This record gives sequence, structure tokens and C-alpha cells, in this order.
Amino acid sequence: METDKISGPQLVVDSDKCHLNIKLMSHKAKHNNLIFRPHFKTHQSRAIGRWFREYGIDKITVSSIKMAFYFAGDGWKDILVGIAYNPREYAYYEKLSGKCRVIATVSCPDAGRILAGQCRFPLEVMIKIDTGYNRSGIRWDDSEGLRACIKYLSTNKRIKIRGLMTHDGSTYGLNSRDGILEHFATSVQRINSSRENAGINDLIISVGDTPSASIAENFTGIDELRPGNFVFYDLMQYVNGSCSFDNISIALLCPVIDKRPNSSTIVIHGGAVHFSKDNTLINARPVYGMVASTDKNGWCKPEDEIYLSSLSQEHGIIDSSNSNLLDEVMPGDLLAIIPVHSCLTADCMGGYMLTDGKVIDHMRQANYDSEFSLL
Amino acid sequence: METDKISGPQLVVDSDKCHLNIKLMSHKAKHNNLIFRPHFKTHQSRAIGRWFREYGIDKITVSSIKMAFYFAGDGWKDILVGIAYNPREYAYYEKLSGKCRVIATVSCPDAGRILAGQCRFPLEVMIKIDTGYNRSGIRWDDSEGLRACIKYLSTNKRIKIRGLMTHDGSTYGLNSRDGILEHFATSVQRINSSRENAGINDLIISVGDTPSASIAENFTGIDELRPGNFVFYDLMQYVNGSCSFDNISIALLCPVIDKRPNSSTIVIHGGAVHFSKDNTLINARPVYGMVASTDKNGWCKPEDEIYLSSLSQEHGIIDSSNSNLLDEVMPGDLLAIIPVHSCLTADCMGGYMLTDGKVIDHMRQANYDSEFSLL
Repeated sequence: METDKISGPQLVVDSDKCHLNIKLMSHKAKHNNLIFRPHFKTHQSRAIGRWFREYGIDKITVSSIKMAFYFAGDGWKDILVGIAYNPREYAYYEKLSGKCRVIATVSCPDAGRILAGQCRFPLEVMIKIDTGYNRSGIRWDDSEGLRACIKYLSTNKRIKIRGLMTHDGSTYGLNSRDGILEHFATSVQRINSSRENAGINDLIISVGDTPSASIAENFTGIDELRPGNFVFYDLMQYVNGSCSFDNISIALLCPVIDKRPNSSTIVIHGGAVHFSKDNTLINARPVYGMVASTDKNGWCKPEDEIYLSSLSQEHGIIDSSNSNLLDEVMPGDLLAIIPVHSCLTADCMGGYMLTDGKVIDHMRQANYDSEFSLL
Repeated sequence: METDKISGPQLVVDSDKCHLNIKLMSHKAKHNNLIFRPHFKTHQSRAIGRWFREYGIDKITVSSIKMAFYFAGDGWKDILVGIAYNPREYAYYEKLSGKCRVIATVSCPDAGRILAGQCRFPLEVMIKIDTGYNRSGIRWDDSEGLRACIKYLSTNKRIKIRGLMTHDGSTYGLNSRDGILEHFATSVQRINSSRENAGINDLIISVGDTPSASIAENFTGIDELRPGNFVFYDLMQYVNGSCSFDNISIALLCPVIDKRPNSSTIVIHGGAVHFSKDNTLINARPVYGMVASTDKNGWCKPEDEIYLSSLSQEHGIIDSSNSNLLDEVMPGDLLAIIPVHSCLTADCMGGYMLTDGKVIDHMRQANYDSEFSLL
């Protein structure tokens, strides 16, 4: 791994591991006859997006209309905007539809009514179903709400309802494979009951979360798969059993800036503005990252489990009480930290280095305001 | 407030409130004969930095060497880099010292030893003291560690030890003015005992946290004040009594994207990538933001206390169960949300709009890589 030129916190991607993650998931989708529409909100990178093309992928999901413009600008022609439709962004959808296939997501009857009133171009729509995550969408057992939404959308002949989608993120918090599989089965059953209650034909079913997509082998009742996080995986996915340690293709290299023998802690330059403040519980304590071992190729599973135990804006605190790490490091040494939630860490860092030192893009630091414009 | 052109989440600064915050704190520092060296990590904006100049401020604190370059590039000539020294950044310190006064921070004896071995230019150093926050620095009662650090630094005649500093962030979690004052008094007493144990003369004492700086009236034993958050304040500071609601000069305007009567929630486009995931406990529940009322000038204190109860990457969930808000809003309406931690929200958003619609900079979206370079 090329680290000589690194001075401050640096997010690094292992291209080999990342390619393997993309290959395995795309093969799984193909093997199960699923439309594979990976979510690009995790990497937000045109360079990494191009790696997906090597496996024949030409359909994607994004989490904002701005992100849709970013990838449309790199030649993607079939984009589902996975966040619920915001009527203030109508003109952006209209503009983008002139460049590629755009699919919008509608989460509630009122949004369907407003969109139907606005829409002056042919638009496909997915209706979001809440299968138990209780975040957004029409509840699976709210037939009245679903039918109202469909009725509103159907008043505009330019709108075609393509299907029903769910993102059941509850699985991110389940720390057992059996628990995830059970939850996934329930979620699939619920969204299919919504389809039965919809009162219209030919609706596809689209599901999204990485834990289910990684662990499940039975995809009966599903037409489309939209995981995102699997491209990198992270500590949360490792803990819940969605991946092995060797699948984790991302690490944040952070310089040691303080050694504190009195409290058995090591302070790194690497805080909330680098990792985000997402955490996961390990041994009933919140953890913000895990120290990996490093080798000439990148990082690997460490012998000791040493965690980032707290974060402030720029500082990260490593609890080294059960290890010799405090004696082994000096200020200026780099530690490779596996982030808890790679999507947020990548968003905070806004750019990547590959293990060979090459720098690649993230939407955050790409200056494309001129492309995301109605002019 | 100009909102017509807003389509997605937009961070807005009320320039009048912000100016008043700067004015009050700079007057307080002057009245108490303190060197005022505000921390610019909160706003990270050259435009807002210039507002400080209107009150005669010419010394600043920053949280990274990169941020030091950003403000040096806008004419700031006296900069304390508040994060502990990272030996990998030596060359940046050396380069910056050619442009302005740079003060480094050293947190542990080993960092002092390494810096003393590296330093080839005249450099002032602050030694960081941990007065009980247990994040970084030499513990106030560790005389041996402090003397070792001083001894190492003193081996290099180019290094001048300017003083001792602390950032006792424990006050951010104390929800009473009396608790904050008591903690502050202890912190000041502890860092002064470190000064007595240092064995050298003429060390200044520098303290930093916004709650203490906002509430305290007695600054005996202190020479320099470095608060940062006060420029905006936020929900956490409002809850702990550091500011009134009317002092909060920042809000994130977020479009409603989903209405969910079954769970009495409203979903906004505004998630972890906009707010960060910092939270504060209100009525024993984690809260990620508070809905403010809006008027023609900006935002004001609402009648009902309605909170952002959870966040995922792009979504925010508002618990509207104790209000009529769910009936009053429609998808596309904008809600003004007071962030829990303005420093992190500003860092996530990477740019600002003023209430009159004018756009101003944040370091995140400023392309200044050519300035932050050793060439």
C-alpha cells in the first residue's frame, strides 16, 4: 500500500476486494433472474461506477436527483431515484428525462397527487412500501393508502406505475444471519401482499438492503435487487454476518497524534467529519471503527479487536487497554480503521485513494454544479 | 427569507444573529482583557471570517493544518492549529510559517520529542492539557509528563513554548448553567496547577469551550479565549443554556417528502449526510434536530416542541405526534430545522445561503487544493 504521501486522514479503497464484491453480487442477481440495479449512494464515484460496467450492469439506483445528474453525466442511461419524490425538484426530473430513463419514487398519496398534477413528460414511478422499517413509504397493510396513491397517479396518463419497492433497513441492526433471513422473508411476504392489494397488474417488486441481498439464497417473489453497501461493506456488515472481514474493501488511514498511557488510549486525527458519528454496539458498547492490521497489499483481520471508542469533530479515541498497541505506535504512524458505516464515511471524506496510490472521484468533491442546473 | 429557488436541503445563516453573536463574544473577551482567538472550525467560511474582522479580531484557531491554509489564503496572519501536531504534516507547518504566524499544539511527550527533532524554523507551541475531558493532552495532574514534554521541546532552540491550552468539552453534555460554571472553575484551577508544575515562566493559559465562554463571567486565571460554536450556536447549546433560541443563527431548510399518518411522522429530505448523526437527549430520548417556526425574516421559537427523532443517510423522521404539523404540511413544503451540532452540520453541508438568498463559502466546497500544496 502506498502511504508515503499521506499526511492527514485518507480513505483508501482496495480495488481487488471491491471488484470481487461487485462480481459476486452481480452473479447472484443473474443466477436468480433478478434485475440488478445497485445503489450508487454508497460509493458516489464515477470511477467505481465504471467497475460495475465490467460486469454488464447498466441500471442503477441513486439517493438524490443531484446524484442522478452526476451519474447521467458519466453515461448512465437507466436511473431510479430511490428517495421519495420532492415536488420542488420537478424541473430537474423533467430535464434529466431528456437524457436518460428516469424512474421516480413516490412515498405517499399526497406526493402522488402533486406529481400527477405537475407531470408533463412520460415518467415511470415506483411506489415505496414500508414493510416494517417504519421509515418511509405506505405501510404494507394500508391498502387504502396504496389504492389512493395509485388512483392519484393514474389521473395523469404520462405516468406509468412500474412497481413497488421497499428498503427494509431493519436488517442493519440485526446481528444474526437467521434473524436477517427471517426479517427478509417477512418483508418479501408483506410487499407481495401489497401487490395483491394494489388492484393493478404487472407491478414489479424491488428490494434493497445489503444484509438480505448478501445472505439470502431464496429470492422468490422479487424482481429487482438494489443493494448498495456491499460494494465496500463495513464493520456493521461484518458484525451482522453479511460479509467476511476480507470482503471489506475500504479503510480510513489515520495518523496517530497523541498517546495517553494514563487512560490507555491513542488519539488519531480522524473524527466525526471523517467517519460520521454512526456507531454499532459491540459487547454492549458503542463502537465507531475497528483497527485493522496492515500488510504490503492493504489491510487484513487483526489478532486483537481494538476499537475506536469515541469521536469528536476531528479526533478519534482508540481504546487500547486490551492490547500492546499503545507501546507499538508513535505520533505520525498511520492506523487503518475499518469504518462502522462506509456509506457515511465515504460521504464525509468525499474522495478516495486506491491502494496503489491512484486518486479517484467522489461526488462530494467533484465540481459539477454546472451540470446540475436547469439552464 | 428567500426560499423560492430552494429545491433540496439548504443550510441558511441569519447574518444579523451571527453578527450579534460575534459582537457579544468579542466584547466579553475585550471586557475581561482576554486575547480573543475564536475557533473557525465551526463555520469554516472565509466570508464569515471577514465578519469577525469588523470587530477587530485578527487571531484565530483552526482544527487542521489544511484549514490553516484556507484562512491564511484569505489574509489571516495569526493562526493557532488547535489539533495535536501530526509529524506527517511538518512540511505544511514549515511552508505556512513563511506566510503568517503559526502556533502548533503538542499533546504528548513523544510528539514534542519528534517535533523537536524535525523543526528547522522558529515555531511557537501550545501544550495541550487534559483538565478532565479525557480526550487528548497531558493530564493536569501528570507533572512528570508535562515536564518531559517541555524538556523535549526545549532541546530545539527554534521552538518557543507559548502556553498551555485546554478544550474541556465535557461542558457540552452538562444541561445546567450551574453545572457548566462549576466544571469551568475546576478546569481553570487544574490548568493553572499545571502551569505551576511546568517549571518555566511566562506561559499563557488558553481555554476553549463555547458553554463556559458563553455563561461564565469570571475569567480569572485565563489569558486567551478560543470558543467556536457560539458563531451559530445550535440545539445542544440551547438545551444546555449557553444561548437563547434567538441566538441560533443557523437552520437547515428541508423539503417534506412523505407524510405518514399511521405513525404520526413526517419524512424530510435531510439525513445523516446533511445534519451528521450527532444527537442530544431531550426527555431521555435522542433528538437530531428541532423544527423552528418561520417568518419573513427567518426562523423563531416555535410554540410546540417538535423533534427530528431519527436519521438515515438522506432521510430525516419528524415525530409529529404531539402537534398538528402533519395536517399542516404537504410534500414540497420546507421545514426549518435547528441542528443539534452546528459545527458538524455545516461541515456536512459544505456551503451556506444567507436569509437574503446570497450564497457564501465553506471550506468543504471551496476548491483550494492548489493552495494546500507543498509546491
